[in-house]
Amino acid sequence: MRSAAQNAELALLLEVCGTPKPGNVDRHRDLEDLLFEHFLAGAVGAQSGLRMAESGESVGPSFEQSVAGMAEQGGGNTQFGALLLLVPLVKAADDGISRSTAESVVADTTVADAKAFYRAFEHVDVFVSEPDPELEALDVRRGSDAAPALEERGLTLLDVMDRSVPGDDVAREWIAGFERSFDVADRIATARGPVADRAATAFLATLAERPDTLVAKRRGGETAAEVTERAADILRTDGRATDRDAVESFADELVSRGINPGTTADLIAAGLFIALENELIEL
Amino acid sequence: MRSAAQNAELALLLEVCGTPKPGNVDRHRDLEDLLFEHFLAGAVGAQSGLRMAESGESVGPSFEQSVAGMAEQGGGNTQFGALLLLVPLVKAADDGISRSTAESVVADTTVADAKAFYRAFEHVDVFVSEPDPELEALDVRRGSDAAPALEERGLTLLDVMDRSVPGDDVAREWIAGFERSFDVADRIATARGPVADRAATAFLATLAERPDTLVAKRRGGETAAEVTERAADILRTDGRATDRDAVESFADELVSRGINPGTTADLIAAGLFIALENELIEL
Repeated sequence: MRSAAQNAELALLLEVCGTPKPGNVDRHRDLEDLLFEHFLAGAVGAQSGLRMAESGESVGPSFEQSVAGMAEQGGGNTQFGALLLLVPLVKAADDGISRSTAESVVADTTVADAKAFYRAFEHVDVFVSEPDPELEALDVRRGSDAAPALEERGLTLLDVMDRSVPGDDVAREWIAGFERSFDVADRIATARGPVADRAATAFLATLAERPDTLVAKRRGGETAAEVTERAADILRTDGRATDRDAVESFADELVSRGINPGTTADLIAAGLFIALENELIEL
Repeated sequence: MRSAAQNAELALLLEVCGTPKPGNVDRHRDLEDLLFEHFLAGAVGAQSGLRMAESGESVGPSFEQSVAGMAEQGGGNTQFGALLLLVPLVKAADDGISRSTAESVVADTTVADAKAFYRAFEHVDVFVSEPDPELEALDVRRGSDAAPALEERGLTLLDVMDRSVPGDDVAREWIAGFERSFDVADRIATARGPVADRAATAFLATLAERPDTLVAKRRGGETAAEVTERAADILRTDGRATDRDAVESFADELVSRGINPGTTADLIAAGLFIALENELIEL
């Protein structure tokens, strides 16, 4: 039987394998400097950090290690957000996983976990918005330099995530009991066909549900809203069985416009992990 | 830095990612019951056995464990032959790998390693030819029942491989100092572009070099020879820069005829590992 850490790595691989996943690298699409194979190497590199979480290490150091390993490939940031969901989920897994155990794990995070989270930004270039001037001491780009400010304010990693909502739907999962991640798992479980195809279907449905926060940060709220409306329109055309050609051209269009709904991809990776770990799917 | 076990897993992933790889599952092709995602799960499953080899465990038990983990997916045998090359190579790796260290590792195998190799066949259905009647006691399909015969004849795993040549080009690598695996690594190093594309180019060149022994076992020597001639013809058309369309149609044709040059794919995985481990390529 695969361990939780192995299921998490497999979830990262299946996520990038699903196609078409409009705007993102997938089995059929590379971006200019970010290739399918960078995601393979990122998933393999994340192993040791995922195993730390599995063996009971704290969330922060496990996350930092997983990011450091993930970043040892030439493509840059491939799976930072996905790992921020997977690491607490792996730690919460014990012969299956529930929303309440996941909530306990994030509730138990400490200031030390927050410091490790900030250190993770030293390993890889992550796209972040400019913080409010009054929050400059807590700008994640400060890395380990933010440690005194975290200490002084007594901020745990859950507190840090709490301050990132709204505007970051990965952080929102931490606060909302991984609601959408578990929804994605259910979508994947009820779909049919190869797991990677189900992941692609779940991607479109999840993108149609709420604007992608990475797109909003990078390209503005209007673009993010447009992308979500377009995804919803394609879904509506014929309900569950989406028009494959329409999805393929939407995917090509987003890639050519440089619009990458990365947060949605992170949620798919988390949902895949839950589906594997709870044996909602067979592979 | 990725460990040797991680590089081996990444080699398995890059191997299946390369396309077009005529006749085999690749980034663009699934077979009917054997999907791309089965190879992803197979690679992740092989982890613990690969880590055993890395930490100095014997070749036989490490191989058996890697096969048992690889087989925990619904597609059947995905990477048995590749692991039979990768496990000794991982054990031989120590900040790089040379043919002479690989030769030492296989020369040091014992009767216990041979017994573990036989047990590996109990974990997965591997295609094998009918043995000579006089060798029935050593039919690999006997699994652990062959142990007394191995003991009685004092056969090490290297002896078992020696008896499988000719007719099995994975076994041949054990006897010939992994010559073709190292050649593949050099081909991959001198090619250009994404690593997975280089792997696909190396696949065609390797297929053109010698008939694939898995094709020969399953479909006969004539078919294997035909496939190799066809690969050589495509290569000759314009030398190194192959005609992509010709390779794509050759790939589709072999898939539709059910001809899978699996031994050649095994050699590509081994070559990818050597290229990664010796830093001949960057990823």
